[in-house]
Amino acid sequence: MVKKVAVILAGCGYLDGAEVHEATMSLLALSQAGAMVRCFAPNVPQMHVMNHITGDEMLGESRNVMIESARICRGQIEDLADFDADDFDALVIPGGFGVAKNLCDFAVKGGEMTIFPDVERVVMAMHGASKPVGALCISPVIVAKLIKGARVTVGGESDVSRVVVDIFGGAHEETSHGDIVVDGDNKIVTTPCYMLEPTIAQVYEGARNLVAAVLKMA
Amino acid sequence: MVKKVAVILAGCGYLDGAEVHEATMSLLALSQAGAMVRCFAPNVPQMHVMNHITGDEMLGESRNVMIESARICRGQIEDLADFDADDFDALVIPGGFGVAKNLCDFAVKGGEMTIFPDVERVVMAMHGASKPVGALCISPVIVAKLIKGARVTVGGESDVSRVVVDIFGGAHEETSHGDIVVDGDNKIVTTPCYMLEPTIAQVYEGARNLVAAVLKMA
Repeated sequence: MVKKVAVILAGCGYLDGAEVHEATMSLLALSQAGAMVRCFAPNVPQMHVMNHITGDEMLGESRNVMIESARICRGQIEDLADFDADDFDALVIPGGFGVAKNLCDFAVKGGEMTIFPDVERVVMAMHGASKPVGALCISPVIVAKLIKGARVTVGGESDVSRVVVDIFGGAHEETSHGDIVVDGDNKIVTTPCYMLEPTIAQVYEGARNLVAAVLKMA
Repeated sequence: MVKKVAVILAGCGYLDGAEVHEATMSLLALSQAGAMVRCFAPNVPQMHVMNHITGDEMLGESRNVMIESARICRGQIEDLADFDADDFDALVIPGGFGVAKNLCDFAVKGGEMTIFPDVERVVMAMHGASKPVGALCISPVIVAKLIKGARVTVGGESDVSRVVVDIFGGAHEETSHGDIVVDGDNKIVTTPCYMLEPTIAQVYEGARNLVAAVLKMA
């Protein structure tokens, strides 16, 4: 049975969108595992457009999350508003600041963040149907906020891990490059990627381990 | 001895820049092989900005090749004008329409194309120093135009392969997913990637085989 997996992209580029390596390494691992993949993104303006050389905001520029995400998946993308959990066996959410800017507002509100309605609906529909969710890098904050008592990793102990534990009431496990944390009760798999300072080969290891664990529970 | 490899990026997105999978799979393969990588791009405006969902030009938008390329390599990018062949053992050029729009004008001129001066300088400096050049997807047209009698692949027989043979005077070998063609005399390695219709796993196979052959000659 071919497993059907949805991937949520949050733009294209780690400062304002999906982290490109985490997204493509997830797609690679899913392709190698023989999964059938469909990519989704919210059809909304990005919070920011960032110059990835200087790290500065490109003032006066406006880009659409779904249109930019399409660069990562060669145009094969769907509106997150049209996502139907019945069509999928599992969900994977790569990281990048875009997750914390375009899927929720963690980048500006931290522990007081709001998760955007379509994102909450999609994650809770999969969780409610007992289907696994894999989250890379910063994406575990979304899972930890929505699913009470979720056990996740965001790499080492940090401001982010303290929000997960102290504000969202989740459990945090420290991890290193390529490691995953599997919360079997909640069917959640997480891996740190660029919450640490990995090589791209280590990002691939993490994505591959995450995809294997997600598909095993799907 | 750690091999030092330069990667030329032509933007971010297959319709107006570097093909994202070919670029990241090249970076992955280089990382796995233990190479030290530096990315370069021309600091010039893109020929087009394309909507990757509709395939239409986004009229009125203007983006810089180097700034957009930086999305693929997390900001660690240098101006192609500053490239010094003495610093490197090998060169890799991923594909995408950006190669045919921002590194040369093959996309609009075909066999009558001009290769942009910094690109010609860089490729000829490496070739002149007897250092290997790897070219993915459409990038072999640059190599075939510059290096007389180069033996390359652009996948199957096509308008592009006929330009390589009939106009540039190169030799073309048909290949399938993941295959490479090694021109040992000229130290050129090529692989078809999205000149065919591969999975991302097959793009990785091609990039990995290309990188292995390039590093062996470096």
